[in-house]
Parts: sequence; C-alpha cells; structure tokens
Amino acid sequence: MDRPLEGYRIIDLGQIYNGPYCSLLLALLGAEVIKVEPLRGEIVRHRDPVSLMPYPYLMLNSSKKSVTLNLKHKQGKAIFRQLVEKGDVVLENYAVGVMERLGFGYDDLKEINPGIIYACSSGYGRGGPYSHYSAMDITVQAVSGVMAITGYPDMPPVKAGPAISDFTSGIHLYAALVTALLRRERTGKGCMVEVSMHDAMYPSLTSNLGSYYQKGHVVPRTANRHGGLAVAPYNVYPTSDGWMAIFCATDAHWPLLCKLMGREDLLADDRFANTVGRSQSMEEIDAIVSAWSQQYTRNDLNNTLIEAGVPCGPVLTLDEVADDPHLKQRQMIIDLDHPVKGPVKVIGCPLKFYNEDGALQVDVLPAPAIGQHNDEVYTSLLDYSPADLERLRTEGVI
Amino acid sequence: MDRPLEGYRIIDLGQIYNGPYCSLLLALLGAEVIKVEPLRGEIVRHRDPVSLMPYPYLMLNSSKKSVTLNLKHKQGKAIFRQLVEKGDVVLENYAVGVMERLGFGYDDLKEINPGIIYACSSGYGRGGPYSHYSAMDITVQAVSGVMAITGYPDMPPVKAGPAISDFTSGIHLYAALVTALLRRERTGKGCMVEVSMHDAMYPSLTSNLGSYYQKGHVVPRTANRHGGLAVAPYNVYPTSDGWMAIFCATDAHWPLLCKLMGREDLLADDRFANTVGRSQSMEEIDAIVSAWSQQYTRNDLNNTLIEAGVPCGPVLTLDEVADDPHLKQRQMIIDLDHPVKGPVKVIGCPLKFYNEDGALQVDVLPAPAIGQHNDEVYTSLLDYSPADLERLRTEGVI
Repeated sequence: MDRPLEGYRIIDLGQIYNGPYCSLLLALLGAEVIKVEPLRGEIVRHRDPVSLMPYPYLMLNSSKKSVTLNLKHKQGKAIFRQLVEKGDVVLENYAVGVMERLGFGYDDLKEINPGIIYACSSGYGRGGPYSHYSAMDITVQAVSGVMAITGYPDMPPVKAGPAISDFTSGIHLYAALVTALLRRERTGKGCMVEVSMHDAMYPSLTSNLGSYYQKGHVVPRTANRHGGLAVAPYNVYPTSDGWMAIFCATDAHWPLLCKLMGREDLLADDRFANTVGRSQSMEEIDAIVSAWSQQYTRNDLNNTLIEAGVPCGPVLTLDEVADDPHLKQRQMIIDLDHPVKGPVKVIGCPLKFYNEDGALQVDVLPAPAIGQHNDEVYTSLLDYSPADLERLRTEGVI
Repeated sequence: MDRPLEGYRIIDLGQIYNGPYCSLLLALLGAEVIKVEPLRGEIVRHRDPVSLMPYPYLMLNSSKKSVTLNLKHKQGKAIFRQLVEKGDVVLENYAVGVMERLGFGYDDLKEINPGIIYACSSGYGRGGPYSHYSAMDITVQAVSGVMAITGYPDMPPVKAGPAISDFTSGIHLYAALVTALLRRERTGKGCMVEVSMHDAMYPSLTSNLGSYYQKGHVVPRTANRHGGLAVAPYNVYPTSDGWMAIFCATDAHWPLLCKLMGREDLLADDRFANTVGRSQSMEEIDAIVSAWSQQYTRNDLNNTLIEAGVPCGPVLTLDEVADDPHLKQRQMIIDLDHPVKGPVKVIGCPLKFYNEDGALQVDVLPAPAIGQHNDEVYTSLLDYSPADLERLRTEGVI
C-alpha cells in the first residue's frame, strides 16, 4: 500500500532517543525527515568518536536526511527560518527554554509559517514545579515512580533496564504530532504539541497507583510477582537452563497447570480454589510450581505450557532477542548493509498497515553521515548555489 | 483551543490496559468513544466484583460511553454491524483470531464500511512463530528481553514494575490509528493497522542491543548503573531518608559534583579526567559519591544538586507519585467525583495542545457504568425504540 505520511516534511532537531524515535517512525512511514545536526553531529554520535556512527545513532536514524547547521550563527538562523517556511513540522527535544533562547520558540516559528506544527518534548514540560529539573531516562524513572515499584522488597529500588522514559515519550510525541497533522488537514491550522517524559510515564503505573488509591497504603516492591499480590501463580520460575514467566490469568488456567504438574490433588484443596485463595498461599504455590518447572529445560517447558494453554513466556536473553526469528519475520529486526558500519541490524516499523494491496512495505535506508544531504537540501529545497555552500562551509554555518 | 479529534466515532472493543489506554486518549482529545462491553462488563471490571468499577477501569475509561452487546448472539452481531456502519474506527485488543471467529475480521468489516479503520493489537501480531503464544504484560516483558536487562547481575531477571508492555503497545496503537485517520482524510480510504506488544517493546532496548551488536557479547545486568557500564557517576545513591539518581551526563558535570562534595582533589586525578576513565573506576567513584550523599536528606540533596546543575532525580515513593504536585499542575492527576466511587484520581491527557487561544482544556468525564449509554446510543444513533431495547434486554442481546 501507499506510505501514509508521504508528502510531509519534518524539520527534525531531535537528539539521543526521544525525538529521534519519533522521527524514525515518521521517516519509515514516508515523511521526508530533514535531521538538522550541529556541525559536529548530533550528541549521540559522540558515543563512538571514531565512526560518529554508534549503534544508537544508526538504529534510530534510518531513512532520514542529515544536514548540518549552526543555529547560533546569524546566517545559520536565516537558513533555519527558510527550512521552517518549507516544512510542515518542527520537532525538538531540547531542555525547556533552549529553542526560545535560539529565537525559535513556537511564537517565533508561527510568524514564519503559520501552519507549522511545533512538536516538542522535555523531561517535565513547560510549567510546574519540576520544569527546571534536568532530565535523562534514569532521572525520570526515579521521579515518575518506576524505580519505586521495580525490584525486590528487601533491596534498593532499581530502574527498568530499557530506556523506557525516553521511548515512551518518543512515541507519545509521534502520537501528538500526527494528531496535530490530522487537525491541520481538517482545519488548515497549525499548533504546538508537547509531551513531557514524566507525564508520559504516569499512566503506565495504573496497576500500582490504583492499588494504592484503593487500599490507602503502599505495597512493597513485588519483584516478579503481581504488583498487587492478587494473583498466583504469577511469577518467573526456574528451569534447568533459564527462567520462565507463568501466569494463571483466570481460574480456568489453574486446573490446566495442576494437570501438567501431575498434581490434580491440589484441585481438591479449598485454599487454592480461586485467585483470592491462591494469592493468600502464594509462597506455597510458587514453591510447588518451582519444584516442577526446574525439571524442564526452558524450551521444553515453554512448549508444554503453550500446548496446554497456560499463559507463559520464556525469559529470553539479550543475545536471543538480538537474533529473534519472530522479530525478524515481523520485520522489526532489519538487516542492512551500512556504508560506514557494514552489515548491521536496525529497527523496523512497529506500526503495521494493511489494505487491499497487502501490507505496507517499509523501505529502511541507512542512517546518514553528518551533513550527507547538505547539497541536496540546500541546493534543491532552498536554492543555494554550490558556491554559496562552499562559502557557508568556510564560514562555519553548515 | 478546539478538540482535535472532535467528530470521529470509535467503536471500542478494547479491554484491560492496552486497547483502553489507546481509546482513553482518543476520548480525551474529543473523539466519541463507544465502548462495547460484554453483558457482564469488560473483563477488568471483575477485579472489583462488587462495584464493577475497580481503579484500573475508572482510570482508563474516562470520557467514554459504555454500551453492552452480546457479540455471540445473532441479533447482537446485527447491531454490531450497524455500529460499524456508523463508525470511523473499530479498535480491539483480543487475541489473534477472536474477531475472525466472531465474523468481524477486517475483511468482514470493510464489506460493511469500506472507509473503516480497523485498529488491532495483540501480544505478537499476525504471523511469525510466536503468533499463537498467549500474551500478558509479564510474558511479553519476558520474551522481549526487558527482564533480561532489568535487575542485578547476581540475581534472577526481574520485570519492570509498571505494565510497560501494555502501555507501550496502547500508545503505539493510538499512533497507528491516528496515522490511518490522517491517511483517510487525504485519500478517502480505510485500512487495517496493527501493533504487537512484542514489536512495540523492541526499540526501547536500543542501548542494550546496540552495545551487544557492537561488542558481540552480552553485558550482565547492571542494576542502576549505565546499561553499557560506560558512564560514571551514573547510579542511584543513598541519602539519609531515601534514594537519589545522579548522572554526570557530560564531562562538565563531574567538576560541579566534585566541588559540591568538597573533593576538588579528585580533579587532579588523571584516572577520573573523562567518562572512559571514570567508568573504569566505577566502584571507587560510586563509593565516594555514596559516602557523601548519605549525609543529606533526599530533598536537601536534590536541591543542592539542582542548584549546582548536576542531573539528578529523587527516587519518589509510590504515595509521593500518587500525590505529585507537578503531575497535578500538569493536569495528569485529575481529581474527579465519581458517581459510584466518590472522590477519585484519574489520568489526564499526556498529549498537550496549544494554539493562539491557549492550551487545550481536556474535559475528563467519569468512567461509565456498564451499559450506561445503551439508551442514548441504541435509540439516537441506531433508531431502536424503547420497546425494542426492552426486548433486546430480555433476550440477552444488550
């Protein structure tokens, strides 16, 4: 099918993970994303000072165009204004106030292009007592309560391993931005959209906050047990060669599991008859399941549970995830031959589209070198001559 | 400003967290969301069998209309087809195959309404070796690698506390759905969009996968340290009354922290001169920072670090998050008087919109009782008479 965002042009100041994940999806779905980088390249490039193409950059910047531009230079500012005139969206995830200090706050940009969508994301948003806090994934995990509810009750709070604050924010930013484009299609009007990393994490604590609001007290961290300690079996259980998540989501799953374990005798035990009873005997239940599960290899146990219809999931190791056959077939892991890095694996599009022509085929192009598209963008889109570009390079503008 | 999704009608079969979070945002931004519930109510309602209004339901279903409908009843199916005729979007997060068995796969629905957007989400999507696995948040955290990289190196893998697989998927589903609406505004054509929970988690592992692809081996779990063990200080440090995340994001932050600690002597130590060196002396660095940090209360330390410009975040406890003044000012925590539950706190909209009229004011209405809008929807939208409704009730259709 056709690419749904074909024809939109994004002026992209995104950096590190949050903004770049947003614009990765825009690019994969057909928008023209012009990534405006400082002359030394976007900050995340410096995680590999030799190639300037560390994995996080190349995983999150496929299918974008890169131009360099010195936004602090007078001539650089003029060029940026020209880009804004030609763009549909300006996207950024600087700290609050940076764009205003550059002279490119929304009030400035809408003077240049009244239809512009200004899409921004920061740690805590504009306004509110935390708006001046500096924010990174780990600090937002701390402040948002993610850490408070992750890990073991008798150990310090621990962060979620993935950079969930950054990525949750990035996809919310995409959501807001496309909603604004939709509104513009219908009304002709631009607007500003904003996502704070902190705001975006908050809904994901629904289970734990709901439990707190209901009970009026905080339940200690539950490790792999149910956040409200209200379901059993619900845990990660040992196998002979790894771990397995098992979850009796309904009362119907318990008899299936008992049968598998050869413990139909447990079905006669009134204490285990329903979720409430089982959760009150959680230690005993977990001991029974663990004693059984560790007799199997992880893969045998997985097959056994799936066949019986008991919800489960093997705890895959990172190298298994990196080579996951399902993610490959889903075109989430994309093999690419990158001009700088050679054969690499990058991220496909998790938003899948289908129509009568079949599935959208997403073209994933290698992440660009710094300023790779300077000539194309500045001469074709903005009408600078090759001589102009030479001068701009010499003067440190591009 | 105006509500950006005003005028769209969503036929919502979402349940538990994933689908309902998607349709919560649709409803808060002005779409008419008709939540179609089984006669006993959506599955999550039964977490509180007395009120049928447990916190997760009321937090995620504000501003929606509830109708009951028996989709297995012949007459129920006929009514569902009428709703589809009048709708812009059908949204569901059943297991793969459920809708087809009901006779409501995309191929069926587009016969009824060619312009319909069919938006669906499941654990592993349609196709691929895992597509028949049953999926819940905990099992997707296992399979996606979230657990593999969360927690301590010398302890079992642990899940992230929030239901991040569910919510990450829900916001991706919103993103896909609104993209499809945008495409329809421009082309007049409907389509199917799909998000798998597993696909949606994958990008958030960029740091860890990138490190693995680069190095060719798996780094053990790092608890609160940097996932690639490449930055120091980067950890959660003790205070006299809690924990504090501190992160020297650039080399410029280290001298600021040394000065605060009264340890300018460390600046003369060549081992600590840059990120690479400090990360190689991580144990020593963490010991120095911990010895200092534990002399402060968490709040004093937070103020001290913020004033000095060192990135940090206090590890807030769940009760602090539940009553967070910043989230309240940002209108993410909304106080509501619910007709069943009385005064409650529900979730506001993390997508913020601003135009020349000011910020979008989001009207958050209490989550509905089961079938609260049967009369309104079935008589006003579908032209059934009160007598018809009485009959449909008696026959177990609504």
